[in-house]
Amino acid sequence: MSKEIQNLWREVRELSLGTEIDRLDSPPSPVQFLRDYVSQSKPCVISNAIAHWPALKLWSDPAYLAGALSNDLVSLHLTPNGCADAVTPINEKESTGDLCFASSHVEKVPFPEALEAVRSSTKGKSVAYLQQQNDCFRTEYSTVASDCDGDIAWATEALGCSPEAVNLWIGTDLSVTSFHKDHYENLYAVVSGEKHFLLLPPTDVHRLYVQRYPAANYSYDRDTEAFKLEIEQSLRHVPWCSVDPYPSPEKEASERLKYPLFFNGPKPFHCTVKAGEILYLPSMWFHHVSQTPGDGGYTIAVNYWYDMQFDVKYAYFNFLQSLSYESSSLSPILSWREDEDSESGDAEKGCSELLWRVRFVLAAGTLWLWHRSI
Amino acid sequence: MSKEIQNLWREVRELSLGTEIDRLDSPPSPVQFLRDYVSQSKPCVISNAIAHWPALKLWSDPAYLAGALSNDLVSLHLTPNGCADAVTPINEKESTGDLCFASSHVEKVPFPEALEAVRSSTKGKSVAYLQQQNDCFRTEYSTVASDCDGDIAWATEALGCSPEAVNLWIGTDLSVTSFHKDHYENLYAVVSGEKHFLLLPPTDVHRLYVQRYPAANYSYDRDTEAFKLEIEQSLRHVPWCSVDPYPSPEKEASERLKYPLFFNGPKPFHCTVKAGEILYLPSMWFHHVSQTPGDGGYTIAVNYWYDMQFDVKYAYFNFLQSLSYESSSLSPILSWREDEDSESGDAEKGCSELLWRVRFVLAAGTLWLWHRSI
Repeated sequence: MSKEIQNLWREVRELSLGTEIDRLDSPPSPVQFLRDYVSQSKPCVISNAIAHWPALKLWSDPAYLAGALSNDLVSLHLTPNGCADAVTPINEKESTGDLCFASSHVEKVPFPEALEAVRSSTKGKSVAYLQQQNDCFRTEYSTVASDCDGDIAWATEALGCSPEAVNLWIGTDLSVTSFHKDHYENLYAVVSGEKHFLLLPPTDVHRLYVQRYPAANYSYDRDTEAFKLEIEQSLRHVPWCSVDPYPSPEKEASERLKYPLFFNGPKPFHCTVKAGEILYLPSMWFHHVSQTPGDGGYTIAVNYWYDMQFDVKYAYFNFLQSLSYESSSLSPILSWREDEDSESGDAEKGCSELLWRVRFVLAAGTLWLWHRSI
Repeated sequence: MSKEIQNLWREVRELSLGTEIDRLDSPPSPVQFLRDYVSQSKPCVISNAIAHWPALKLWSDPAYLAGALSNDLVSLHLTPNGCADAVTPINEKESTGDLCFASSHVEKVPFPEALEAVRSSTKGKSVAYLQQQNDCFRTEYSTVASDCDGDIAWATEALGCSPEAVNLWIGTDLSVTSFHKDHYENLYAVVSGEKHFLLLPPTDVHRLYVQRYPAANYSYDRDTEAFKLEIEQSLRHVPWCSVDPYPSPEKEASERLKYPLFFNGPKPFHCTVKAGEILYLPSMWFHHVSQTPGDGGYTIAVNYWYDMQFDVKYAYFNFLQSLSYESSSLSPILSWREDEDSESGDAEKGCSELLWRVRFVLAAGTLWLWHRSI
């Protein structure tokens, strides 16, 4: 199986994706966008598509936003280290212990206070990120919604629907979003600063070593300024990518051994999206996001999630994900279909050939030992 | 593997294809065509797209074409039984003997003579079909090219290119085209009579039992009116679908046993295309074609082949085709990539697990016999 899957990684790059993300100088027509990008599940970065947004001028000065949203309550996300929605040791003192999927502590605060929390983020103490998603730009931030377009017109025409959600993101370089995928077509516009994307196509799913982790939440005590990470009482599990593409020096050697398909395979696509640019991120593409602040001290972005088509590409992806990648590792490779997120679906499938090999080796070995002893 | 592949067949139908081919009352816009059909690799039949073609009025009377093309030489295809480009017993008297891929005998004759040969086709004696393909409508039949459009405008705009080839087809109900696929996006317009398509999506490749057959050609002796079927001297092999969806009564039981994935799986899509209708047949879809003549005594069709995109769907197809479907059958399942058509590429791959099972059984069996003899 491994040879066939590696061929797939290679062929999709040779036929379609190339080695770098396409850059367009101006917005594509709807037909061109559909034909050359959406239909092929191929990302691109488009310049000169949002130059007309008032936000591009107004939001570079944080005082403007703080003034415009002075009376609006927004969802502030806090973690000790800037790694929300990430695979994290349950006990931070035991970095080699059990892992969980950690979500940030969330509080509703007035926007000026939230912005100040983001500005004064300190790694190891408290890192704040405005990352509410959930259509927050049209709800929590609706006061400034007219500073941007309500949709990306050529994408709306191509995709045949309006955005399902529009989200605002405000952060600093301390906030990193770990590898994951979304079931949406994503038009991701940067207004201030830069976003750095590592991208891998859906065909590369095995390279992310998706596993199920118990869901946990940070809680934050304002008085003691201390975080606590606790497993959710419902014992919910979340499938998430296990790979950190930037392991710390002390972990790097062991990470490379644990995740060879990632570290030894084709490099992820690297793509910086600057202020005024839009990234088309096709549905189901794995992405890791870091950021560089703009002159005002923040990275600010608005993204448009459009419903994806659950079509033959999605069916092929589910099929691929349901297969195990042969491995000489003794630990079974978990593989499951998109819809098997429940506890009872946690099947260790797909080691058929490996097991028959092991059985043969045991039988043949016994035979040989017996023969020698006679 | 079989369970995962069956899931794929089911899921692509549930998510996208449904149970019947979509029918549109009028031509789609280029964006709609791309989004709802091309991008999803989903067929449809469109009415009222070619009503303006002079051919629809003029070609119903064969005398018109015979007159217009009276001085044109065209390629006439002859077989004894109407099954050109089909898996055929090398020796017709031994219906259970070796098989080959048989191509028709081809002669260049004046069009009126060709039309008469088609009209007077007799099964078991000589069946004639005008099926030259190879852009013949713009070459051999260019005299009447203005009776139809040079392209399908909304498809040209959607696909971003002009047709690579335009072909004319004239036949009777004696001519049947066996299951195969083409590397083109196909707009197939029926001008007179009806075409009956059986369709299976690329995801169902294992159900067609594609195997490599030695290429053979019919030769025809006009004096003796006898056909001879001879293997090509170059010993070329052609990968072709093995399944006949309409086996003769005497063969049916054995065919159902040989090809269970076809006969026991989801029924092919069945689609009749009438005069004035166009079928969009996505690239790589398996299709079997039969026909009912129109009032003039012929089925007449014009098809437009547009270049396909070799994109992620194509890469996924190659990956799927490279896998073997687990089977309890003792004969190995051949599986190979699209580009391995040469003799040296004829590898019997994909029986890894089966072989390890066999090895284990032999080793364990030897162990047991030894133990018993002691």
